[in-house]
Amino acid sequence: MPTTPTSIAFIGLGAMGAPMAENLVKRQFRVTGFDMREAAREALVHAGGHAAASAREAADGAGAIVLMVVNAAQARSVLFEAGALAALAPGALVVLMATCPPGEVEAIAAEVAKSGRRFIDAPVSGGVVGARAATLSIMVGAPDESFALARPVLEALGDKVFHVGQKPGQGATVKTVNQLLCGVHIAVAAEALSLAEKAGIDGKLLFEIMGGSAASSWMLRDRGPRMHEPDPVVSSAVDIFVKDLGIVLDAGRAAKTALPLAAAAHQMFLASSGLGHGGRDDSQVVRAYRALNAKPANDA
Amino acid sequence: MPTTPTSIAFIGLGAMGAPMAENLVKRQFRVTGFDMREAAREALVHAGGHAAASAREAADGAGAIVLMVVNAAQARSVLFEAGALAALAPGALVVLMATCPPGEVEAIAAEVAKSGRRFIDAPVSGGVVGARAATLSIMVGAPDESFALARPVLEALGDKVFHVGQKPGQGATVKTVNQLLCGVHIAVAAEALSLAEKAGIDGKLLFEIMGGSAASSWMLRDRGPRMHEPDPVVSSAVDIFVKDLGIVLDAGRAAKTALPLAAAAHQMFLASSGLGHGGRDDSQVVRAYRALNAKPANDA
Repeated sequence: MPTTPTSIAFIGLGAMGAPMAENLVKRQFRVTGFDMREAAREALVHAGGHAAASAREAADGAGAIVLMVVNAAQARSVLFEAGALAALAPGALVVLMATCPPGEVEAIAAEVAKSGRRFIDAPVSGGVVGARAATLSIMVGAPDESFALARPVLEALGDKVFHVGQKPGQGATVKTVNQLLCGVHIAVAAEALSLAEKAGIDGKLLFEIMGGSAASSWMLRDRGPRMHEPDPVVSSAVDIFVKDLGIVLDAGRAAKTALPLAAAAHQMFLASSGLGHGGRDDSQVVRAYRALNAKPANDA
Repeated sequence: MPTTPTSIAFIGLGAMGAPMAENLVKRQFRVTGFDMREAAREALVHAGGHAAASAREAADGAGAIVLMVVNAAQARSVLFEAGALAALAPGALVVLMATCPPGEVEAIAAEVAKSGRRFIDAPVSGGVVGARAATLSIMVGAPDESFALARPVLEALGDKVFHVGQKPGQGATVKTVNQLLCGVHIAVAAEALSLAEKAGIDGKLLFEIMGGSAASSWMLRDRGPRMHEPDPVVSSAVDIFVKDLGIVLDAGRAAKTALPLAAAAHQMFLASSGLGHGGRDDSQVVRAYRALNAKPANDA
């Protein structure tokens, strides 16, 4: 009878990964981390974990590997090229928590299964704040038995663990849908602002009214105020939604599903990036609307 | 020095207008109502108001007229054809509270001004519940002096009275923007559901997760659950958004403002209506997505 592993390889100690790995340490898992940056490895050791010189070494004999890397290509590289998959204990859990296209998650899962390990598709939402406080939402696609084994690991990282389906790729799909809604909600807030400004309405008053009405969204309340700032601090960049709405539309293509609103919103993030604002806060998609609709730019 | 009127003609005693007129009676205004339906007139008398046999008679010598009619054409008909405008006291307030295109509101306002009366552009949101409880949001476009005169009337009807601009049409624009956001938020919730269902995700679980995340909107939480019902009770019909997103796009045309998300959402409400669902609850825009994306219909 397999049990939840106690030794975990953690790959990717960035803004999200570092506090997640530390939360596993706090729950008494033996965590061996790897990141390209030495400072990140040292910080984990300082927090009570262990550091390895490579992903393969981190995975050596471990009962689970958690991947909090940038994208699916990095996950493939770690597992298949760097040899981490083959180094894991037989029957080990492979927990992919990065945001990846559902189709790529399925393909990686198939290769993991061939090696005799269990694949857990478990992307997160909640950002750096949620990663630090262990309050992430985690959307899991995995068979019941694998989910049960991984659950204590996941519950060390988030307080909202949803088992959304038996198949790898279903967790990624829910995360994809989450990004579809978030991206469209940001873009439509900018579109609404653009129409109001053209009519001489004060944008701040507009969002105050809309934020308290049936027209409200979480994003309108969060990003709306930043649309009035000339260059707000970046909480998440325009180019993140260029990428994530790209993943949404790729998922729609793979599933042969028409997504007209997501497609239109993606165009506005793309245009914003093309205008040179890809590194700015994602609220600045409003600059693409202002370019279209002739309201002077924020910094004009 | 003009003062707030005490005698008010109230035209349009429907689901919204009837409780609004009664709220004015409760605040000690002398209210004379007109509606085509005799039962509606009798109900106002029963509540302490007065009834007139025509809009002109209701307006005769009144210090204000409130229009809670179906659309701009009815407002024109009452004011200019039925002769209500000419019957009002000199300098009386003309308060248009129906949802109308901003351009039409401007045109009506110009004719009212020519007659020496004061025009108040004051559409509402908050629905029948808000009309009954006198908790409507009211978005007012009017010069300061006119707004000050109308304010006690408006505050008898709503608890969130926003003075959004000096010009008639600006209140209508804010209401238009409100409908832009509401319509897109309903449609994108259906779009998100459509993608998730295609991947075999349980739609109820999906909305439970999304409703508690950054992907949430007021509409997703309100309309989302009804997307799972085969034929929910109609709170507001698909055809209302066919009309209201039509007003949004007309406002965009008039202002030469591109509204790509509103345009795409309008297509989905149009298609839903064209498929025969115009009279159903607006959550049933999901039927257009299901028709497109081959998920079996609700009632299949």
